[in-house]
Amino acid sequence: MSIGLRRVIEPAGVLPQAAWRLDADPEIAPDEVRIRVQRLNLDAASYRQLAEKHAGDGDAIRAEVLEIVETRGKMHNPVTGSGGMLIGVVDEVGPESPLAVKPGDRVATLVSLTLTPLRITDGLKSWDGLSEQVPAEGTAILFGRSVAGVLPDDLAPELALAVYDVCGAPALTDRVIRERKAATVAVLGGAGKSGSLTLAVARRAGARTKAVVRDEAERDALHAAGLADEIAIADARDPVAVSEAVGEPVDVTVVCVDVPGCEHGAILATAPGGTVIFFSMATSFPAAALGAEGLAADVTMLVGNGYVPGHADFAVDLLRRVPAVRALFEARIAAD
Amino acid sequence: MSIGLRRVIEPAGVLPQAAWRLDADPEIAPDEVRIRVQRLNLDAASYRQLAEKHAGDGDAIRAEVLEIVETRGKMHNPVTGSGGMLIGVVDEVGPESPLAVKPGDRVATLVSLTLTPLRITDGLKSWDGLSEQVPAEGTAILFGRSVAGVLPDDLAPELALAVYDVCGAPALTDRVIRERKAATVAVLGGAGKSGSLTLAVARRAGARTKAVVRDEAERDALHAAGLADEIAIADARDPVAVSEAVGEPVDVTVVCVDVPGCEHGAILATAPGGTVIFFSMATSFPAAALGAEGLAADVTMLVGNGYVPGHADFAVDLLRRVPAVRALFEARIAAD
Repeated sequence: MSIGLRRVIEPAGVLPQAAWRLDADPEIAPDEVRIRVQRLNLDAASYRQLAEKHAGDGDAIRAEVLEIVETRGKMHNPVTGSGGMLIGVVDEVGPESPLAVKPGDRVATLVSLTLTPLRITDGLKSWDGLSEQVPAEGTAILFGRSVAGVLPDDLAPELALAVYDVCGAPALTDRVIRERKAATVAVLGGAGKSGSLTLAVARRAGARTKAVVRDEAERDALHAAGLADEIAIADARDPVAVSEAVGEPVDVTVVCVDVPGCEHGAILATAPGGTVIFFSMATSFPAAALGAEGLAADVTMLVGNGYVPGHADFAVDLLRRVPAVRALFEARIAAD
Repeated sequence: MSIGLRRVIEPAGVLPQAAWRLDADPEIAPDEVRIRVQRLNLDAASYRQLAEKHAGDGDAIRAEVLEIVETRGKMHNPVTGSGGMLIGVVDEVGPESPLAVKPGDRVATLVSLTLTPLRITDGLKSWDGLSEQVPAEGTAILFGRSVAGVLPDDLAPELALAVYDVCGAPALTDRVIRERKAATVAVLGGAGKSGSLTLAVARRAGARTKAVVRDEAERDALHAAGLADEIAIADARDPVAVSEAVGEPVDVTVVCVDVPGCEHGAILATAPGGTVIFFSMATSFPAAALGAEGLAADVTMLVGNGYVPGHADFAVDLLRRVPAVRALFEARIAAD
């Protein structure tokens, strides 16, 4: 089965993403691809949870990542429900695989680590546990119905991975702005990776952009990048503060802040008939649904789908064309 | 503040829905309304969780509901994150309230119990703990920005409450079908309350309807009601079974099953470019987002907003015009 059902150990009958445990055996089926892993990029919400739980103790964080992968056969944080992505080199391609990759290609997996069978063989000895970027050796498996992107020659692998990690956000935002003919767009977390790409795409689509950021440092960086028409500082978890920061409600609000509790501010910031796109894995479904209802807010709320056809090339193209976005990404990676 | 911030005790700064604890003091502010409570209608996901936890022991279920309300100042199930609704009689209307109600009106609150300050004064002595419908005495508070519906004269209060409880689903589904010009609609949980209303509205909007139900009894009831063009039996938590039951992928899939784990079946059942509307409070945001990504599924996923302007009248009108829907509702209420 091309969606990886044969890899599900328990519970039976669910898809790999919903499974508690996967079979990470490096032996591939005819429609599978094996990747020799080089680096994991942990989802921001997942890494944050681990870092907070272990108070920044790198050894403890590393031990827990290893334990999760060992136990579940995938890097699927059981608390946040999120994973991340990886890069590596294609090792073997099954004769029936429909993916456009060949042995030796350096690729990024564009599906979540929460459904990717993964085996770590080096004990993560080259990782200090203090960053989302995890040098790693081991094997990962891609199913028939999957997505992988060959890494571009002109970008450092870390940079490409960071872009691929959030590439659903600009592609979906672009589509929504065009479909809805949105004139104003607010981005919560506008200085981050998905946030800066989203601001860039919103402006290119012709919208007026408002960014909400955490602090002065983020404001200054974003101001220097020139990606937003307005920038305000507010705690995205404080709905009244967000609403005041955004001011006149906007047509589209995009949530790119990876902390819980940002649903209500986003709803309040959005005009009646407008759209909220949630890209944070820390989004609570009931908080969004019941919050909008409780506020009598007639807004369309989208679960940020990490897949839009062509999303990876779209985001890389945006990065190449907008130097300010590239500079923000490179600064983030350097600081990691 | 019209959104109830003065009622939030902890944590400070969040909206009432996100609060851990509300002040349920019956004394109202100038823009508030006090309701004399007659009946609570617990959210299906919430009641199911409580019933399973206590293995159907009515006394234990009642005790936990009382404890939740006492502790939180609202009926906000901390496990499911969901609440329900209530009916009662308007007791006092603050001079600055914008709501179109007057003392003596029999109303249903159309906002979730998760944000409604609630005090129970009768120990729920008239409730056996064995049904979602909870006779109750006490007081509830509505804020300025809120929604309440005066109960129609021609419907029993239990019936009106049951309709109001799910009235967001048919209104939003109708809008999506018309906007997207959808020709085919699948409803998971088609025999339930929101499911049957959704099927009725989909057919009225001109779509071909497919219902997925749990068992023969539901299939037979729905067949007799004549609301679906096709009916199949499948476990909504089994993605492959749902996909096979629906067959040719549809333009719009509506999830009306109040159990966790229905995200992936809904995604697989939906055609590329189609839309999934999640109305179940048991929906997992990461499971939906990462599941679609992992399946490379280009589907739009909507958080089912419980508020659409005019939704209550829309649903009641549908119930009046489609006797089969009314019969299904009345049978459900009688069986409760």
